[in-house]
Amino acid sequence: MLADVELAKSYRLLNHGPTVLVSSAAGGRRNVMAAAWAMPLDFDPPKVLVVVDKSTYTRELIEASGEFVLNIPCRAQAAQVVQVGSESGHGQDKFASSGLKPMPGLKVGAPRVAGCIAYLECRVVQEPHNQQQYDLFIGEVVAAQADSEVYSDGRWHFADDAKRSLHYIAGGAFFATGEAFSV
Amino acid sequence: MLADVELAKSYRLLNHGPTVLVSSAAGGRRNVMAAAWAMPLDFDPPKVLVVVDKSTYTRELIEASGEFVLNIPCRAQAAQVVQVGSESGHGQDKFASSGLKPMPGLKVGAPRVAGCIAYLECRVVQEPHNQQQYDLFIGEVVAAQADSEVYSDGRWHFADDAKRSLHYIAGGAFFATGEAFSV
Repeated sequence: MLADVELAKSYRLLNHGPTVLVSSAAGGRRNVMAAAWAMPLDFDPPKVLVVVDKSTYTRELIEASGEFVLNIPCRAQAAQVVQVGSESGHGQDKFASSGLKPMPGLKVGAPRVAGCIAYLECRVVQEPHNQQQYDLFIGEVVAAQADSEVYSDGRWHFADDAKRSLHYIAGGAFFATGEAFSV
Repeated sequence: MLADVELAKSYRLLNHGPTVLVSSAAGGRRNVMAAAWAMPLDFDPPKVLVVVDKSTYTRELIEASGEFVLNIPCRAQAAQVVQVGSESGHGQDKFASSGLKPMPGLKVGAPRVAGCIAYLECRVVQEPHNQQQYDLFIGEVVAAQADSEVYSDGRWHFADDAKRSLHYIAGGAFFATGEAFSV
């Protein structure tokens, strides 16, 4: 079940460095891509960073809409993460081709990806120089939810391996998020 | 044993989202802090991003020197990572207080942290607006090395748990980098 995550603590969804899916929509078109290069930028108001290459269809939709969602996928979705990270959305609907299902965002027009373990809905903080020079986008997080089976009270608590978050290596290989421990 | 990492593939050291130690030096002063918010920005020439708050001593040293090192610590160092992430370097030598040992960089004046599993030596790409507005620093990676026991041929291959990389959660808790798998 999805539960709201307090915005000022939403950085905790990304703090451990998981690979994300970036979903976007504009003018009746939609897309989803994988991104290993995303992280928190600030606590309150919460902001995130994500690198989105100029060649991607996602880039076109984010620039047209000023919105995107960072979806945190889990191990059960790893093959689909690789697929939407390898193919381009130019000329095809990657939701349809990958089998990933869109579902509505709470506060943005971009879809969320069903079955993910957390969602950060973002509005672009316009920084044209970063976007042009570095393909770097800043998003302010305007809504956040997580699957209460693996995230509650501000903490991840992975049990089922299929629901662990992912850390992309290269060439279709990942690390699953591993053992939790405290010092 | 440390081995050189090809610069154009040095992003792979950070691609899975590990927590890092940021080390810096200027005018005979030195410091080390922990940062969960670091990631690759570009492949070739390789660039990285790291968020360094204005209140930190590290910030002062990076601004004075234009250099920093991203060190990737391992589980054996987790308690020291928490310590240098909690205390300020203003008024104390955190290498001395934490027991972390500095060792020379190859190409920058900033020290590296002995016992880490990888190193990215960086020169700041000056972007004053990002630094002031977002505490965001861009570094060009000018040298990279990794411990060949856990990284070789462009891939991590963790075996011993003590040498796994770390993913910070909050409050002294981490995830170790987990199981590797391919799809």
